[in-house]
Amino acid sequence: GMITEVLFFPDKEVACKNHFISDRGCFNTKCRYSHAKTSLSELYRHLNTADKSLDVSIFCFTCFDLAEILIMKHKRGVKIRIMTDDEQVDSSGAQIWNLRKEGIPIRTDRSSYLMHHKFVIVDSRLLINGSFNWTRQAITGNQENLLITNDSYVVNEFRNEFEKLWKEFDPK
Amino acid sequence: GMITEVLFFPDKEVACKNHFISDRGCFNTKCRYSHAKTSLSELYRHLNTADKSLDVSIFCFTCFDLAEILIMKHKRGVKIRIMTDDEQVDSSGAQIWNLRKEGIPIRTDRSSYLMHHKFVIVDSRLLINGSFNWTRQAITGNQENLLITNDSYVVNEFRNEFEKLWKEFDPK
Ligand SMILES: [Zn+2]
Ligand SMILES: [Zn+2]
Repeated sequence: GMITEVLFFPDKEVACKNHFISDRGCFNTKCRYSHAKTSLSELYRHLNTADKSLDVSIFCFTCFDLAEILIMKHKRGVKIRIMTDDEQVDSSGAQIWNLRKEGIPIRTDRSSYLMHHKFVIVDSRLLINGSFNWTRQAITGNQENLLITNDSYVVNEFRNEFEKLWKEFDPK
Repeated sequence: GMITEVLFFPDKEVACKNHFISDRGCFNTKCRYSHAKTSLSELYRHLNTADKSLDVSIFCFTCFDLAEILIMKHKRGVKIRIMTDDEQVDSSGAQIWNLRKEGIPIRTDRSSYLMHHKFVIVDSRLLINGSFNWTRQAITGNQENLLITNDSYVVNEFRNEFEKLWKEFDPK
């Protein structure tokens, strides 16, 4: 079916990753995270539907919880690729080295200009795109948006751009 | 009809504003700007279709040519509203004071968090949204995207968010 969804941030509370993502749910009776639906929980939900691939193109990636979801998916055999901005890789709190350590392929631009995209393609069929960097500040602080669509024209345009940049950013 | 368009940056050349926007076209025989279609020229074209309103929500706005288009539209009676990030207003090259001087209403957040959206709504019927800030660097330097749609569900979600923030950012 057709999927079109719009999410706005900031969320009032941080969604509980265990509640929304883990197979067993959240057992913390004093959990300080949200078990109610938020924009982040919707992002979690869509990322969690990946069973083949997650192509992530994200300027700034410092959010530990989102990194953990990628690592969990990677361990379950989902093919993850991440491209980011070269100057962001070593910035404070960047998750890129954690992800690389797990064996997830990461590529970056090699210019003083910005790899400024903030999109993910789930299983080559769903696009999540907007202003939202993968940072805690974007979740509960900033005014941000995400548009989620499985419109095949739109998804294919972003897939092509991802493949083009993935080749372009090949360090070899 | 249905409009769905995807634009990627950087452009190889800067589109000629006169060629794409002015009623008389470009008369400069040695024009150093592009008269061929680019991503920026497509943005110009869509902005130029506005005859009622342009609701602009943009984190960083330093591009002189895009400011000029808003001023031209404003002088022709198109109702312009701009919201931006308070810390960006006085940043180097910011166009906000030029636009305010012309009488265009501008509002900002009043927090250390970011008003990080980068979208425009044209005549309450077309959304232009993505990673693209209105800067020269975004046009010819960075990897950026814009998704353009007149899907009424999507447009209405962004209209509602614009109105909500516009009220929230009222300085009174
Ligand atoms: Zn919980
Ligand atoms: Zn020209």
